[in-house]
Amino acid sequence: MPAMRRAVRFYFDFISPYAYLAWTRMPRIAKRFGIELAPVPVLFAGLLNAHGTKGPAEVPARRRYLIKDAARKAATFGVELHAPFAHPFNPLLLLRIASLPVEEAERRRAIDVIFRAVWVSRTDIQSPEVVRGLLAGAGLDPAWVEQAGSAESKDRVRAQTDEAIRLGVFGVPTAIVEGEMFWGTDSLPDLERYLEGKDPVPKDLIERWESLPAAAHRPQSRTG
Amino acid sequence: MPAMRRAVRFYFDFISPYAYLAWTRMPRIAKRFGIELAPVPVLFAGLLNAHGTKGPAEVPARRRYLIKDAARKAATFGVELHAPFAHPFNPLLLLRIASLPVEEAERRRAIDVIFRAVWVSRTDIQSPEVVRGLLAGAGLDPAWVEQAGSAESKDRVRAQTDEAIRLGVFGVPTAIVEGEMFWGTDSLPDLERYLEGKDPVPKDLIERWESLPAAAHRPQSRTG
Repeated sequence: MPAMRRAVRFYFDFISPYAYLAWTRMPRIAKRFGIELAPVPVLFAGLLNAHGTKGPAEVPARRRYLIKDAARKAATFGVELHAPFAHPFNPLLLLRIASLPVEEAERRRAIDVIFRAVWVSRTDIQSPEVVRGLLAGAGLDPAWVEQAGSAESKDRVRAQTDEAIRLGVFGVPTAIVEGEMFWGTDSLPDLERYLEGKDPVPKDLIERWESLPAAAHRPQSRTG
Repeated sequence: MPAMRRAVRFYFDFISPYAYLAWTRMPRIAKRFGIELAPVPVLFAGLLNAHGTKGPAEVPARRRYLIKDAARKAATFGVELHAPFAHPFNPLLLLRIASLPVEEAERRRAIDVIFRAVWVSRTDIQSPEVVRGLLAGAGLDPAWVEQAGSAESKDRVRAQTDEAIRLGVFGVPTAIVEGEMFWGTDSLPDLERYLEGKDPVPKDLIERWESLPAAAHRPQSRTG
């Protein structure tokens, strides 16, 4: 029996430009360390609801900043990124397609094609016909659009989102390897350092932090 | 008349480990580009209230992640960082001291000393006596603690926080230079690139983004 391969689970939603940017790097990182890459589509809005938080694009001041910041990271990554056809948009059909139990290389190709349609070519991916065309253009089966509409497909994305919430995932992209979480494109270098066996987090830091007293509280009236 | 020097305004609150980390870099960045560094203490809780958002330490799952992430960034920065005496704590006295209209080099020294007391030596900075000792130990005037209690001192921090809100600052640390905003330690390389005249944000990106239609909305019931 072969030894279990190390795996990194990559939680993402197509709605996030940062998830797109991280996705352009993940296959290379997985390859470099010889670990399995398991992409896990989740509904970002579901994470926000579970944690009672707002997404960056839901706070006007932060929304303005978001796209500039994403453009700067994209330039650093050497990756094209444009304002999409609309934002926010409903990503559910896309997430369901990206979660179908198809051959892994094909699933990964579908994720690539969808991310690029949203964040590079500004394609309006709201209509099933457009998505069928995208899949066909990538040599994939357009019938996945129909398969994604099944109750099973819907449950799959819901279960993946629940899994993420249970693990404490609060944003996308998040990579989890051996229970260790790395959130955002900015943490990819930290993920690589962890995989090199050089994570610098002191062992007693977390216990200290978790056992800290709160010496003040902010009134929560205006934030729900 | 000498030409106006370029200036970077650095908005921060002692409550944030990221603000501490960025602070350890800002003087060097300002020096490298020959620009003026203007530290602006603000009440982070005031920004959160204004934008109707939660701070990272206010969301349990995110709070657990926060300190690990900060520790990783600290290691990258080559800077010591520990869990503080308590978190959150009331930073108002510290912010008021750091805002006093004293000689700029002394004010900067006070900011240094306070940041290090919180994030390095784990000092309980809630009592005025301790803060007096900190200031004295750094060759600064302990009477600043009393001066910080004046109505004028209180108004100053309030006005600085209002200024930040007006400019769209939604988190700390935030650096603003020539109206351009850079949020978080992870954006310091972007700030440097901007100061080099190499900011890669395409001119039409913002207009496109700001004029995007919203093709979906998340129900806001559970997030206030």
